[in-house]
Amino acid sequence: MTRNIPARVTVVEVGPRDGLQNETNILTSEDRARFVDLLAAAGLPVIESGAFVSPTWVPQMACTEDVLARASRRPGVRYTALVPNLTGLERAAAAGVTEVAIAAAASETFSRRNINRSIDESLRAYSTVCTRAAALSIRVRAYLSTCFGCPYEGPVPTARVARLCRALVDMGAFEVAVSDTIGVAHPKQVWDVLDAVQAAVPIAQVALHLHDTRGTALANVLAGLQAGIATFDASCGGLGGCPYAPGAAGNLATEDLVYLLDGLGVASGVSLAGLVAASDFIAARVTQALPSRVYRAAKASSGREDCRV
Amino acid sequence: MTRNIPARVTVVEVGPRDGLQNETNILTSEDRARFVDLLAAAGLPVIESGAFVSPTWVPQMACTEDVLARASRRPGVRYTALVPNLTGLERAAAAGVTEVAIAAAASETFSRRNINRSIDESLRAYSTVCTRAAALSIRVRAYLSTCFGCPYEGPVPTARVARLCRALVDMGAFEVAVSDTIGVAHPKQVWDVLDAVQAAVPIAQVALHLHDTRGTALANVLAGLQAGIATFDASCGGLGGCPYAPGAAGNLATEDLVYLLDGLGVASGVSLAGLVAASDFIAARVTQALPSRVYRAAKASSGREDCRV
Repeated sequence: MTRNIPARVTVVEVGPRDGLQNETNILTSEDRARFVDLLAAAGLPVIESGAFVSPTWVPQMACTEDVLARASRRPGVRYTALVPNLTGLERAAAAGVTEVAIAAAASETFSRRNINRSIDESLRAYSTVCTRAAALSIRVRAYLSTCFGCPYEGPVPTARVARLCRALVDMGAFEVAVSDTIGVAHPKQVWDVLDAVQAAVPIAQVALHLHDTRGTALANVLAGLQAGIATFDASCGGLGGCPYAPGAAGNLATEDLVYLLDGLGVASGVSLAGLVAASDFIAARVTQALPSRVYRAAKASSGREDCRV
Repeated sequence: MTRNIPARVTVVEVGPRDGLQNETNILTSEDRARFVDLLAAAGLPVIESGAFVSPTWVPQMACTEDVLARASRRPGVRYTALVPNLTGLERAAAAGVTEVAIAAAASETFSRRNINRSIDESLRAYSTVCTRAAALSIRVRAYLSTCFGCPYEGPVPTARVARLCRALVDMGAFEVAVSDTIGVAHPKQVWDVLDAVQAAVPIAQVALHLHDTRGTALANVLAGLQAGIATFDASCGGLGGCPYAPGAAGNLATEDLVYLLDGLGVASGVSLAGLVAASDFIAARVTQALPSRVYRAAKASSGREDCRV
């Protein structure tokens, strides 16, 4: 059953952006840069290091220029940042970023509430961003949120997900991160959605961005691997998730993902020990306990000897 | 990829035993019986309702006779109990139990530390239990712990796991629950261990007993389903686990398992709403927050609307 699983995958670390943007604490640029450096030291090949958004709306992401200036830019590591619009793209270009991310939604209500635009309006705006990015030689990665369910609308048609993936690739995105924003996906749905998406976009241009809200993230990773997905987003320590649901898990933890990949013999180049070191650093600077189960097991391992069946 | 997945599975609820035995609080027989009744009402077909062990060693499991006497024994539901030896078996028989569980280990050190016997000594003792059980028309289910790793010895040879499964079936066990006692298993290992076990024992006599310590339990369920496993143990709310590792997850939560099965279209007859009701009841009577992610998501759902990508 490991037959069709890719031998190697790319892990896209989103902790410094999707993780920290949801934290109550606002970290200094020094700490954010140090976190990015620890993630690079752990072997992560892609690190979404911040967002060029308005500090009024997302104060956690203020001074992303400074974070990127302070981070040791390791050769071979892709340092990316989220941009909501042309202004953000120009800031990214000025900061020397060569890859950015945009975030569209597969649910109309979610799109309006999250980015204050209809889906079509967002596509038109992102098309302009992609055109300008191409002129600047900046690569664009796209998130497509709520692909497995919307908190307002419930189920989302797979045909719409496929159509929007195609639209994002057509406007120039090199990859679409099909996202389970609220962590409702299960393996059957992963296969169903990816079947539809694959008919519209080459699988090599599709990533999975999973949340572990219902404990299904790693089962969905396995399902994704079996469908040929070779790029997965994850957040160090499981950082982030939803600030409105205390105790609810959010982003798939990078440690948990890498533990699974290591077990499957799928190469990622990421070191678990390096991730735990990065989590130790960030755990001391955020308000909530990190939800990563592998991280917690690593921390508790000295006392785990006497467990029973 | 759902092709080989069983259409229907049996969920064995172990919360009232494996869950509560690890809790600091000692519940009354009334509350334990009420919990068992709520689990039966949720549709669980098999409920391990307690253990006939010494109350000196496991005070949480004292008065299991009383629990079983107070529980409404629904027709069609299998009410089982753990027995460590012949004395326990006679107590089970006197309580009108028609199915018991025994617990052997695949690791020598774990066997000595957990049940104070070598593996061979335990097999000889359990063989006597099985013979007496047959005379009493009591069915015997066997756990085989540490099949995926031992906290003292590390890796456990799959050939030994397969040989011990065969030995337990040979002595009369109708089913062996291949157990990941410390929650280290990953899907590749599930396939490897089950390949070896299947060569020794019919797959219909094999169950999986998983812990979610590293977040891999549901991925391992998916792997098990794909290998043809149709019986899974789980604990309501994720109750139990290891009392020596605060915050570390323990038993696979029944809610999380049923959420996955529902998504896959695998029938279990278990109601998620019924499980949440049982978890609500028990959550108010134990010291630790229940780790089930589906349970937590259900409780937090009213505030989850504004989560982002």
